Amino acid sequence: MKRAVILLSGGLDSAVTMYIARKKGYECYALMFDYGQRHRKELLFARRLARKCGAHLKVVTLHLPWKGSSLVDKTARLPSSRSVKKIKTAGIPSTYVPARNTIFLSIAASYAEAIGAPVIYIGAHADDSSGYPDCGRDYLKAFNEVLKIGTKRGLEKRLRLEFPLVGKDKSGIIRLASSLGVLFQHTWSCYEGRRRPCGKCDSCVLRAKGFKEAGIKDTLYA
Amino acid sequence: MKRAVILLSGGLDSAVTMYIARKKGYECYALMFDYGQRHRKELLFARRLARKCGAHLKVVTLHLPWKGSSLVDKTARLPSSRSVKKIKTAGIPSTYVPARNTIFLSIAASYAEAIGAPVIYIGAHADDSSGYPDCGRDYLKAFNEVLKIGTKRGLEKRLRLEFPLVGKDKSGIIRLASSLGVLFQHTWSCYEGRRRPCGKCDSCVLRAKGFKEAGIKDTLYA
Repeated sequence: MKRAVILLSGGLDSAVTMYIARKKGYECYALMFDYGQRHRKELLFARRLARKCGAHLKVVTLHLPWKGSSLVDKTARLPSSRSVKKIKTAGIPSTYVPARNTIFLSIAASYAEAIGAPVIYIGAHADDSSGYPDCGRDYLKAFNEVLKIGTKRGLEKRLRLEFPLVGKDKSGIIRLASSLGVLFQHTWSCYEGRRRPCGKCDSCVLRAKGFKEAGIKDTLYA
Repeated sequence: MKRAVILLSGGLDSAVTMYIARKKGYECYALMFDYGQRHRKELLFARRLARKCGAHLKVVTLHLPWKGSSLVDKTARLPSSRSVKKIKTAGIPSTYVPARNTIFLSIAASYAEAIGAPVIYIGAHADDSSGYPDCGRDYLKAFNEVLKIGTKRGLEKRLRLEFPLVGKDKSGIIRLASSLGVLFQHTWSCYEGRRRPCGKCDSCVLRAKGFKEAGIKDTLYA
């Protein structure tokens, strides 16, 4: 059974991505990061998701000695109560963590090489990004080139990146999640990471829009 | 004064690279990694190098929960007493750390974004590599594309990668180091990291060859 490394965050997108990899027949090695995020609570969700999906889970701790994002700097304010239109048009938000996906993908590459996995899955997509530069197709293709050239496996079998959600919007992802049996109450999106989702951060707003458009009930709120 | 992030290892190549960046007029922000390397001793050399060059130094600790290299696994054996020809022809050595340069560069990208530096310097070159896949020009150009597309600055000013040593061999780098005033006794190459260089690991062998070809005395052995 071939192995795949899955970047798992505890959110909806990476959960669906892990289920897609499992459906493709891969033995899933989920990789999660404890990087000082406000919503460290997502780690608990990732653990449960991995267990339910029958995936291995590895957690890497990475506390970088600089700030640069309201997602890791608890003294900064998160964008709040923005309309979807505002989120989509206001440019890169303060929640953008410098080079986060590049760091996560590079560490995933190391893990994939160490365990002999030929593929890495990431759940990035442009609709989610609200302006993040490291979520689009061009970025993911560029990183795939780095993998092809710059890894040990690359010289023989070409370690590769799969990004099955890249062309989808949130409602499409939610419908896909539903068809794959992802339990929404096992996923966490809120940037605040308190007991209940805040409903006001960009992540909560985009999640709510996706469920509304998909016509599906978000069981996290049950 | 423009800022540059320099990947510093305590070795010869990154020391020269830092001096090149300084000569180009950059304020140097050296970035060093404590990643469980055998030759953790190189950290002390990096500190001294940064101080002598008037550079800032940031050390990032990153202990990944998997092995995959004799450079971080002290129970593994290092290649020893290999001829230069053997080193050059035997393929990727066990000292290759999976995706190391990709990880270092991605964290450097995060640092550069956080401090507003438009450029990252790396001292990689093919002669040093003894088969490392993440040291050649194609790899570095591919990573440069990731930086251009996938960073916040990238959307406006294009954060870029400089790799001034990529076409040079070790003797050329040593001559350049000499002309820039790098003190060789402040650089450490030996993978073993004991009190004195072992003289037998690939890194010691390639260093000795470089000095011999350059006709320069290695003052580390003084």
